[in-house]
Amino acid sequence: MLKRKGSEAVLDLLIKNTVIITMAGRGVGLIPRGNIGIRGNRIEVVSDADEPTGNQQAHRVIDGTNKVVLPGLIDAHIHTGIALLRGLAQDTDHWMQKALWPFAAALTPEGEMAGSLVNIIEGVKAGTTTFGDYDSSMADLLRNHDQVGTRARVAETINEMPDKITDLEVGEPYPLDAAIGQRQLQSALDLFEQWHDHDSGRITCMFGPQGPDMVSKELLLEIRELAAKYDTQIHMHVAQGDREIDQMTRRYGKRSIPWLEELGLLDSRLLAVHLTEATDEETRLLAQRGSAMVLCSGSIGIIDGIIPPAAQFLSAGGKLALGSDQAPGNNCSNMFNEMKFTAILNKCKAEDPRVFPAWKVLRLATIEGARAIGLSDQIGSLQPGKKADIIIVDLDSPAMCPAIMAPARNIVPNLVYSANGSEVQTVIVDGRIIMEDRKLVNVDEKQETASAREAAQALGYRARPGKNSVAMQMMEKEQL
Amino acid sequence: MLKRKGSEAVLDLLIKNTVIITMAGRGVGLIPRGNIGIRGNRIEVVSDADEPTGNQQAHRVIDGTNKVVLPGLIDAHIHTGIALLRGLAQDTDHWMQKALWPFAAALTPEGEMAGSLVNIIEGVKAGTTTFGDYDSSMADLLRNHDQVGTRARVAETINEMPDKITDLEVGEPYPLDAAIGQRQLQSALDLFEQWHDHDSGRITCMFGPQGPDMVSKELLLEIRELAAKYDTQIHMHVAQGDREIDQMTRRYGKRSIPWLEELGLLDSRLLAVHLTEATDEETRLLAQRGSAMVLCSGSIGIIDGIIPPAAQFLSAGGKLALGSDQAPGNNCSNMFNEMKFTAILNKCKAEDPRVFPAWKVLRLATIEGARAIGLSDQIGSLQPGKKADIIIVDLDSPAMCPAIMAPARNIVPNLVYSANGSEVQTVIVDGRIIMEDRKLVNVDEKQETASAREAAQALGYRARPGKNSVAMQMMEKEQL
Repeated sequence: MLKRKGSEAVLDLLIKNTVIITMAGRGVGLIPRGNIGIRGNRIEVVSDADEPTGNQQAHRVIDGTNKVVLPGLIDAHIHTGIALLRGLAQDTDHWMQKALWPFAAALTPEGEMAGSLVNIIEGVKAGTTTFGDYDSSMADLLRNHDQVGTRARVAETINEMPDKITDLEVGEPYPLDAAIGQRQLQSALDLFEQWHDHDSGRITCMFGPQGPDMVSKELLLEIRELAAKYDTQIHMHVAQGDREIDQMTRRYGKRSIPWLEELGLLDSRLLAVHLTEATDEETRLLAQRGSAMVLCSGSIGIIDGIIPPAAQFLSAGGKLALGSDQAPGNNCSNMFNEMKFTAILNKCKAEDPRVFPAWKVLRLATIEGARAIGLSDQIGSLQPGKKADIIIVDLDSPAMCPAIMAPARNIVPNLVYSANGSEVQTVIVDGRIIMEDRKLVNVDEKQETASAREAAQALGYRARPGKNSVAMQMMEKEQL
Repeated sequence: MLKRKGSEAVLDLLIKNTVIITMAGRGVGLIPRGNIGIRGNRIEVVSDADEPTGNQQAHRVIDGTNKVVLPGLIDAHIHTGIALLRGLAQDTDHWMQKALWPFAAALTPEGEMAGSLVNIIEGVKAGTTTFGDYDSSMADLLRNHDQVGTRARVAETINEMPDKITDLEVGEPYPLDAAIGQRQLQSALDLFEQWHDHDSGRITCMFGPQGPDMVSKELLLEIRELAAKYDTQIHMHVAQGDREIDQMTRRYGKRSIPWLEELGLLDSRLLAVHLTEATDEETRLLAQRGSAMVLCSGSIGIIDGIIPPAAQFLSAGGKLALGSDQAPGNNCSNMFNEMKFTAILNKCKAEDPRVFPAWKVLRLATIEGARAIGLSDQIGSLQPGKKADIIIVDLDSPAMCPAIMAPARNIVPNLVYSANGSEVQTVIVDGRIIMEDRKLVNVDEKQETASAREAAQALGYRARPGKNSVAMQMMEKEQL
């Protein structure tokens, strides 16, 4: 039995007689029949069901029979603010210019908030407890996370690009404007003041330069100093597409990762997202410098038809997390889907079914993801003393059925390859139940989806997609 | 308005004011706000909501506001009989020998039936209405399809392999036994007598030689004659792995497809499954001969780390369907998942995000799949006169939200890339509602999952996985 000091006090919540996937140790740390007790926002005890804690007093007891309990999933990179554009941008080359931008221009702050909230609800219903939200207007979007009750480790995006950039032709160099950068940096600093370490650390902030191509050298160096001062991470798109590499070589005569190396940005504070166009050598360098990577398998696969070099990054000892990226492109924010994509795409890339096995992918979505975003001392595994971010999954749902415990177990492979997220029954974040029996506790799902529907309709009236829009071309061919 | 003759009679069911994706025409044939009426087992009328049919009398009316109606999905290749082994076989090379067989030996007829029923329930809950079930004991398994109310186009598998084959070392040639083949062929003929064209054609049969490596030349030729006599298709694994190709070249000095060409099997009766190891040239030959292909993206990706040559097959004009294959290997039977995998894997194989767009993949799961399995005159699109196999999907579920209708629509991409199957609310097969508000109508889901759980536990007691079992090795490393 594992327990914290002083654990004789009455528990707030006890989940009894359940399969527990602790994710402690080198594998999945499965307890076939155990109890897990929570007091306040922390896990107090994790034990076999037959130990005396089985009878420990608790204000509330959940019977975990025919269920499996595991750490909440971590979506380390998501732009919830553009979720209203879900399904308007895919099946094209030059995704950003030809698919996203023609509609992004019609997004209002209200539309961002409405889409973000549905996106967060979608994630929670599929077992996501931690959101690496990365967007502009983060001070507003955090109100959604605060309301729903999710854990958020966020960054206000910072770029120096004028609004009219959406009119640029594919391949034209972006203009950068230092005044815009300073304004956005100030918003990021305000975000720290307002939200960093909010609610006992349930919400924390990082710095979010939007990509080495979208901010100047001077601003990047300033952000580097600030990240050290605030002792936090720098969350940044790196080598996220041929568009970025093209801009970098035009502007600096250097590719993204050598440029960041030159500026001293490659260190353990960097959380580098995508690496779509990173060479194997660049990828290994990043891992060796202690930087972390976020792999967005669904989004990059659909947007670019590319499988990022996560295998190389892992084999060089890198800290890897998974992310859903954004609704217009992925098009969903479902970490079960992300786990499946990550496993199958990397197996096919390596032409080897043994790579990215289920247990390893589940680690990426939990304990190893937590390590990449600097929170592994708090979340990612079910161990006494850690924050209570927990999901309960129904083993009697058809996709998880039958659960087999001996002579070999099948629950972990079925979580990764078979479950679709709808098997998650209960979601607990920071000790509080935020979804129960698939019903969100702190938000009216029906009302919020209706709001998003109305906001999307209004966006439709405003949108003036031009000749570049691939969606309008597909409409003509009756493909949408 | 499209309607059948005599459509003035009272309808049995009318779905009103709903988005309809008819899949008629060359695209998706979307009606933004329409009605669809059913009488008996057929679609009677498909119209805009504003036409007079909106007021047509019906015994039952469903309000389709904020929902989308589309043809039921077609899972053209599935082995429901081994579903009890879900999650016991993955993340290994030599999947069949090292992962499946160590546990398959412990399957009983009762276990097959219990697993099959949960597998069918899983499929229906994710919108599958037609199952290309392919297994031994099909006369028994069809009782499950008959009970649940699904459409089934099935084949009793026929091979000449003795039971003790599961003891063979990897790479050892299979012994073939003509007596076994004749016995299994007789079962297949009995199946036709008992089930072919059952319930007005809801259940139909094909012949199912299990692979060119698993039956002799003589038996294949006999089956070819029988398929002509019964005017049906031959459903067969073809080039399903290096194991098969290895057996073929040892036995006949020929690869699978040239062998079938020599025997005159490559024609429009052949439904060739997998083509995992088919060369581009072989694949094109198959398409040119008019044979159809079933692509099992999830299963082959996970089992082999291979993306089959579906793009080549399509570009040669071939008729392609999708299939979930089997639970121990995929590990789920969810056509939404299969659509996602098919799109993203082929985009990554081609390194081109434009290939396998959402509309095309949805066609593969509906009208084009129907064509491949010889049923496109009956199902696959929503048109008057066709059988009423229909699913209703909730547009207010988070993964489908927001639905945007103008200036471009986003529903089709969200069905393929975002939905996970749990958004399906109602499933209609042959005019009858078999799932309503996510509750199966003809079967007690709770009871059947409990039966499968018990059967799986019993299988666990019986199983004696040997030194080959990769699952037992993973248990030792705490990876399961």
